[in-house]
Amino acid sequence: MAIQSYVVIHNIAKRHNVGTLARSATAFGVTELILVGRRDFNAFGSHGSTSHLPFRHFHSLTDARLFLKDKDCDLCGVEITDSALPVNERPFKKSTAFLLGNEGTGLSAKECEICDFFVYIPQYGSGTASLNVTVAASIVLHQFGVWAGFSERSRDGNKFVVAERPARLLKYCTETAESIIQERKSRRENACKGFFDEIRNGDPGSNLLDTIFSEE
Amino acid sequence: MAIQSYVVIHNIAKRHNVGTLARSATAFGVTELILVGRRDFNAFGSHGSTSHLPFRHFHSLTDARLFLKDKDCDLCGVEITDSALPVNERPFKKSTAFLLGNEGTGLSAKECEICDFFVYIPQYGSGTASLNVTVAASIVLHQFGVWAGFSERSRDGNKFVVAERPARLLKYCTETAESIIQERKSRRENACKGFFDEIRNGDPGSNLLDTIFSEE
Repeated sequence: MAIQSYVVIHNIAKRHNVGTLARSATAFGVTELILVGRRDFNAFGSHGSTSHLPFRHFHSLTDARLFLKDKDCDLCGVEITDSALPVNERPFKKSTAFLLGNEGTGLSAKECEICDFFVYIPQYGSGTASLNVTVAASIVLHQFGVWAGFSERSRDGNKFVVAERPARLLKYCTETAESIIQERKSRRENACKGFFDEIRNGDPGSNLLDTIFSEE
Repeated sequence: MAIQSYVVIHNIAKRHNVGTLARSATAFGVTELILVGRRDFNAFGSHGSTSHLPFRHFHSLTDARLFLKDKDCDLCGVEITDSALPVNERPFKKSTAFLLGNEGTGLSAKECEICDFFVYIPQYGSGTASLNVTVAASIVLHQFGVWAGFSERSRDGNKFVVAERPARLLKYCTETAESIIQERKSRRENACKGFFDEIRNGDPGSNLLDTIFSEE
């Protein structure tokens, strides 16, 4: 089976980061963007620009892991742990799902538990403890694409060619009794984290993924 | 002489991009961030978090090139040109300054003229014509650091160690009669481009580089 990559987002807090992340994900041939936890992601909308990147929702990390293991994926945490391998050594073996930590706190113990291994990005300078989360994810996806030998997209002048919009938004949901219990729990746990609140309380006309593919 | 890297910013339009870019620059051991054109960058401020990354100002691209050639640097444009080399092949030879294009239009003909060569980042997916400019720059700086074999920064737990603030902000200006004429011209040309206007007209208490090293 062809090599694939996935990005798993659990509790990323900032709206801007998710938009830029999704833009990088489609650039680097990510198969699906997987959101775990609250499912207010309907607010991400179904406008055309988002439809190039399929996304999928799970209520729990366990469910996401089961889905990815069924696809024979490794789960790779992007985090500076003691055992993390430098990403430039491209320590990959097969299809891989990359789990990103929250901007402030990194991967939680629970998130680390579902990972098979970790990669980190070597830093050389003295001025910052870590990279922006979307920058880190993009570097990892770049290195994975090189390792996997994905086919390069054709170009037109100084731009890569953007495909026509698929007719339908590619969005997958999974619902089970267990997952609904998990969702309620997750809702309580994340009540203070802001990301989904920001969407719910924001301008009702605003749309997270609308801005992904605009020039930034 | 030890290998060094520089980042040259000419007409980057968005404030957020410059902040994240500077954070990546310090992470990847960039020697100096070089701003070309208008010098309203005093508005960037002198607060502590900015002082890890020296920055320098030139009024013209020609002056910037002379300075960098005096340091025996190659000038590398980050742009998807016909002759651009894939960055994952690390086509570097010595100290290098990376010139970044404007978010909307990429590198101008004038900017391309001062470059010795170009690198681009291969893309595989169908959903976006290009990457966010700070993401692209960060990937290039990551690959350059790996190529140069920079020493990795020590860590404390899951974070790289941040140095104590230098006592003074490292900021360099160059002023010549020619450069002042160039500045006036540049001011007229860039009047509609927004970046510096945004700073001038914005909250007088806001400060671009204050936010660079905060967790995003």
